[in-house]
Amino acid sequence: MIVILRPNADASAVKRALIEHGQWTVAMDGGFILEAHSSAVDPAALRAIPGVLSVSVAPSAWPRVDAQSPIVDVNGVPIGRDAPPVLMSGPCAIESEARIDHIASKLVAHGVRFLRGGAFKPRTSPYAFQGHGESALGWIRRAADRHAMRVVTEVMSEGEVQLVAEYADLLQIGSRNMSNYALLKAVGRAAKPVMLKRSMSATISEWLQAGEYLLVHGASGVIFCERGVRSWDPTTRNLLDLGAVALLAHAHGLPVIVDPSHATGRRDLVLPLARAALAAGAAGVMIETHDEPGCALSDGPQALRPEDLSALTSYMEKSR
Amino acid sequence: MIVILRPNADASAVKRALIEHGQWTVAMDGGFILEAHSSAVDPAALRAIPGVLSVSVAPSAWPRVDAQSPIVDVNGVPIGRDAPPVLMSGPCAIESEARIDHIASKLVAHGVRFLRGGAFKPRTSPYAFQGHGESALGWIRRAADRHAMRVVTEVMSEGEVQLVAEYADLLQIGSRNMSNYALLKAVGRAAKPVMLKRSMSATISEWLQAGEYLLVHGASGVIFCERGVRSWDPTTRNLLDLGAVALLAHAHGLPVIVDPSHATGRRDLVLPLARAALAAGAAGVMIETHDEPGCALSDGPQALRPEDLSALTSYMEKSR
Amino acid sequence: MIVILRPNADASAVKRALIEHGQWTVAMDGGFILEAHSSAVDPAALRAIPGVLSVSVAPSAWPRVDAQSPIVDVNGVPIGRDAPPVLMSGPCAIESEARIDHIASKLVAHGVRFLRGGAFKPRTSPYAFQGHGESALGWIRRAADRHAMRVVTEVMSEGEVQLVAEYADLLQIGSRNMSNYALLKAVGRAAKPVMLKRSMSATISEWLQAGEYLLVHGASGVIFCERGVRSWDPTTRNLLDLGAVALLAHAHGLPVIVDPSHATGRRDLVLPLARAALAAGAAGVMIETHDEPGCALSDGPQALRPEDLSALTSYMEKSR
Amino acid sequence: MIVILRPNADASAVKRALIEHGQWTVAMDGGFILEAHSSAVDPAALRAIPGVLSVSVAPSAWPRVDAQSPIVDVNGVPIGRDAPPVLMSGPCAIESEARIDHIASKLVAHGVRFLRGGAFKPRTSPYAFQGHGESALGWIRRAADRHAMRVVTEVMSEGEVQLVAEYADLLQIGSRNMSNYALLKAVGRAAKPVMLKRSMSATISEWLQAGEYLLVHGASGVIFCERGVRSWDPTTRNLLDLGAVALLAHAHGLPVIVDPSHATGRRDLVLPLARAALAAGAAGVMIETHDEPGCALSDGPQALRPEDLSALTSYMEKSR
Repeated sequence: MIVILRPNADASAVKRALIEHGQWTVAMDGGFILEAHSSAVDPAALRAIPGVLSVSVAPSAWPRVDAQSPIVDVNGVPIGRDAPPVLMSGPCAIESEARIDHIASKLVAHGVRFLRGGAFKPRTSPYAFQGHGESALGWIRRAADRHAMRVVTEVMSEGEVQLVAEYADLLQIGSRNMSNYALLKAVGRAAKPVMLKRSMSATISEWLQAGEYLLVHGASGVIFCERGVRSWDPTTRNLLDLGAVALLAHAHGLPVIVDPSHATGRRDLVLPLARAALAAGAAGVMIETHDEPGCALSDGPQALRPEDLSALTSYMEKSR
Repeated sequence: MIVILRPNADASAVKRALIEHGQWTVAMDGGFILEAHSSAVDPAALRAIPGVLSVSVAPSAWPRVDAQSPIVDVNGVPIGRDAPPVLMSGPCAIESEARIDHIASKLVAHGVRFLRGGAFKPRTSPYAFQGHGESALGWIRRAADRHAMRVVTEVMSEGEVQLVAEYADLLQIGSRNMSNYALLKAVGRAAKPVMLKRSMSATISEWLQAGEYLLVHGASGVIFCERGVRSWDPTTRNLLDLGAVALLAHAHGLPVIVDPSHATGRRDLVLPLARAALAAGAAGVMIETHDEPGCALSDGPQALRPEDLSALTSYMEKSR
Repeated sequence: MIVILRPNADASAVKRALIEHGQWTVAMDGGFILEAHSSAVDPAALRAIPGVLSVSVAPSAWPRVDAQSPIVDVNGVPIGRDAPPVLMSGPCAIESEARIDHIASKLVAHGVRFLRGGAFKPRTSPYAFQGHGESALGWIRRAADRHAMRVVTEVMSEGEVQLVAEYADLLQIGSRNMSNYALLKAVGRAAKPVMLKRSMSATISEWLQAGEYLLVHGASGVIFCERGVRSWDPTTRNLLDLGAVALLAHAHGLPVIVDPSHATGRRDLVLPLARAALAAGAAGVMIETHDEPGCALSDGPQALRPEDLSALTSYMEKSR
Repeated sequence: MIVILRPNADASAVKRALIEHGQWTVAMDGGFILEAHSSAVDPAALRAIPGVLSVSVAPSAWPRVDAQSPIVDVNGVPIGRDAPPVLMSGPCAIESEARIDHIASKLVAHGVRFLRGGAFKPRTSPYAFQGHGESALGWIRRAADRHAMRVVTEVMSEGEVQLVAEYADLLQIGSRNMSNYALLKAVGRAAKPVMLKRSMSATISEWLQAGEYLLVHGASGVIFCERGVRSWDPTTRNLLDLGAVALLAHAHGLPVIVDPSHATGRRDLVLPLARAALAAGAAGVMIETHDEPGCALSDGPQALRPEDLSALTSYMEKSR
């Protein structure tokens, strides 16, 4: 934003008033530029400051995201900061019908309402396990149905959107595809709710505009998912940005899910960061679980066992 | 760590066992390298895996930090994850004796036990206010004493260590000086507890080794302070790394304070992130407050008013 | 790599020999781990060091990239560090047949052999110009043919790969799609040479493995393109990583093109960085040009005019 | 900068003219904000655009750096983009008088005019070799004098500034101390030329303001040194930012030295990046050399041998 002063205005007094509103100012001839890391503020409040001639605001680059309801309904389950926090859990990959059903049966006892698992896996290496594909979609759907859970799973290819949309309640866009605009358009056209993971070095603006692509092309709602950004420190797999979560939740009023499993890669830090995410304003958390982590086809080292979630459930009940 | 296999060992079985222990593995001839973002584990547990010949561990680069008690005493106030969480608060700069006393009188009512404020200010510009210096040290000391608070304040110069040490209970090393080894040595020699802020792009290893400098040279204890790292996104001032906080608190057992004010620069996000910090394992939080943020000589846009802390105090009581 | 010592070996002497080979060492019981930023070295040279029992090397994660010829032929034009450096140039977007032809006619006079221009544009905003699509492919193809140039253009969608492959000599994968594995597979199957831009925060390993996807699925060759990575400094659009270019060119023997236009976003820095790229080992540079930058539909501020390339051409002739 | 339009101005026409000047624009009511990664431009040229009412420019935050001559004289050797490029070289640490003299004797034959070497070493670990201190200053001074070289060496402590200033021609501030303002002030007061290394994640603005501290407090000139910034990729030690070098050299007209040894940590990439640095506009390069890298007390893996510089010298002669 830019604040233009009236002739003869007391610039120092205006600056003090701007600071009172949490605004970082850069002085220029005749006014101030307000820096991006200022607190959210109603421009009308700034226009009312004595000495202010006008306040220029750039039009929002994500009007449909702004207009979205703060609670997104996913097949009957509301997701948003003012709804009860949701737990999403399950294995990295869907490995067999028996296993996903077994895991689901354990998770549901801990209050998990969304069953996660990948049928199509984005893997850094072309030689790594790429997922069991369509068969796996049937396995997770049936497991979820047996336990009255919702299904969230990733779609990686434009050609598979319709297929995945038949099985999933919530379509996931992975972090590697946040700026794959062809996929965003195709997924939007499926007219379902979408969970959009932030890419590894996306700005908040890029992330929100990716959400705008989804809504413009027809998505029924967008839920944002923070899963850690790229870091220079090797002791956690990624760097969890809960400031971004708080920003989206509190300043933008958007539903945000946090994935502490990928954020850290460390089983010993997943639960503290899940608690932190909820405290920061997340609408829920997504946690990888596996009944035998050592046998997991991918990401076993970061997987909890389903029963480990009980500590989190207790925390959530206490925090209500 | 490196895990060497016995001849004829079943490498797949060993790998599964390592994953069960939360270890990320890179296969090599005859063994595995364990990646840095693996969960903390007792090497003895890995040596007990059938088929494992030996486990090589590099010696710790921060043995005195490892040996430090999980609770550091600061003039009678214990700081650590297992002690009651502490609140540190006050203005960015100490502006006058009357003002710091007034702020202190309000903060103490909200359970704040440490009064903060800068007498010497590290400013990016040589033309910015550099702090009121020695006079300000007297002002904050007397204000703290009147309200039975402890003083935490920054020391920036080797030549001022003795002076600051006379007034402060807890010596703060700012993020710009985390790798100023001449200062670390001088501060260590003051034989007091030190709060060491992480520099803007420090690795965890560099941060812990900076703590080691302090202890080797005589500091009575080191408390680590995360205040946000450098980010590419302009909508928060820095990027708060609560994964690092959880790591130090839970995997290393160290006392960590979180500064959500500098981490975000946004008054509207300070309290959610303070709650998140405590949930992640922080031993306390440091929050900038000012009775008239518009008049603050520095960092006013991110300052809360003392009374804003009441929401945090309620949260802390509820979370006990 | 890991170096295991013989019993009774002189570890200090082995360490000195490793350092003589440019290796950074981490000492462990009975050996050394060699750090990733060590110089490239033949493991056989390390095995020959007295006192060394064995050297363990992880198998390459990109064997087909390793096996690729250092020179990739693109419809008769060789690209590689040992071939003459190539110039690729043209507008950000293909705006009309007349304009692309006019630009091409000027570029060819400056030795530009590849005509670039986007028919499908990846734009951060869904409301921004998205490219003229298939029509534009015809325009650039005919312009290139009239001036004996090759066509390099981006493909963004799995569904458009065959279409783009009919018109282009070199298929470009944009930085936003470097980890869009569905697209990499589809483009690989077109069996043409591909120019793979590095994503904004990709590691070298991730970039090379993305190239491996292309080759595994049938690409006839992969040329890597560095276009700047994400940075915290706003005064350049991105941060050009010429260390990565030198690494791929000199340690891996791969063809690398550098795009200084997107790397800086600054017209005033494009040519110095183009020269630097060639000095670092790049096989060529790709530079955005437009005959009327003020009218460009995208990226006009960073576009040079075709005639500006003459200074670069002179430099290249002098450097031969 | 901000561009304010006249009432009834044709905003589109003004925008086109701004783009012609290489400016990235953000539209607002009645004008444009120009983004930081726009090309350098004379505001007067923008004020002359038809339809422009006014152009607001924030005052420079580093007026003394702006006013500095583009060539800094270091005891008779001019350093600047328009002066002959200078070579600075020598070992990481000064290890003995005999060794530094031997290295100097070899370097001088390759046109090296500045002998480098550390007497006080900033080491990440308190247990690592910290330098030979004052004795080493005498060793390097005498070696330099015998070979008609200048001395550049680091000063780490306020208390040692006078001592180092007696021996050195050019005082070096290391990257860890770029924001150690107490040291900057003390070094400025020595009234000598200073080489200021960029810290690991400094913005350009922070770097220039650190230079301003030096000049305000009395330094006779500031030379900037880029040595690589923090990166997430482990295959180079740091990430060399030659865009920053081009920016300072070409847009600001400042003398910049590049240190490719610390930037990469890889002996096999030092020379290509030294060439690239000079092509980007550097006034010179600083390269670590050692006669027996395996015996170096620090940084041996990245050290070249003095005779390796001959390839660079040939390149520099050819490029004149």
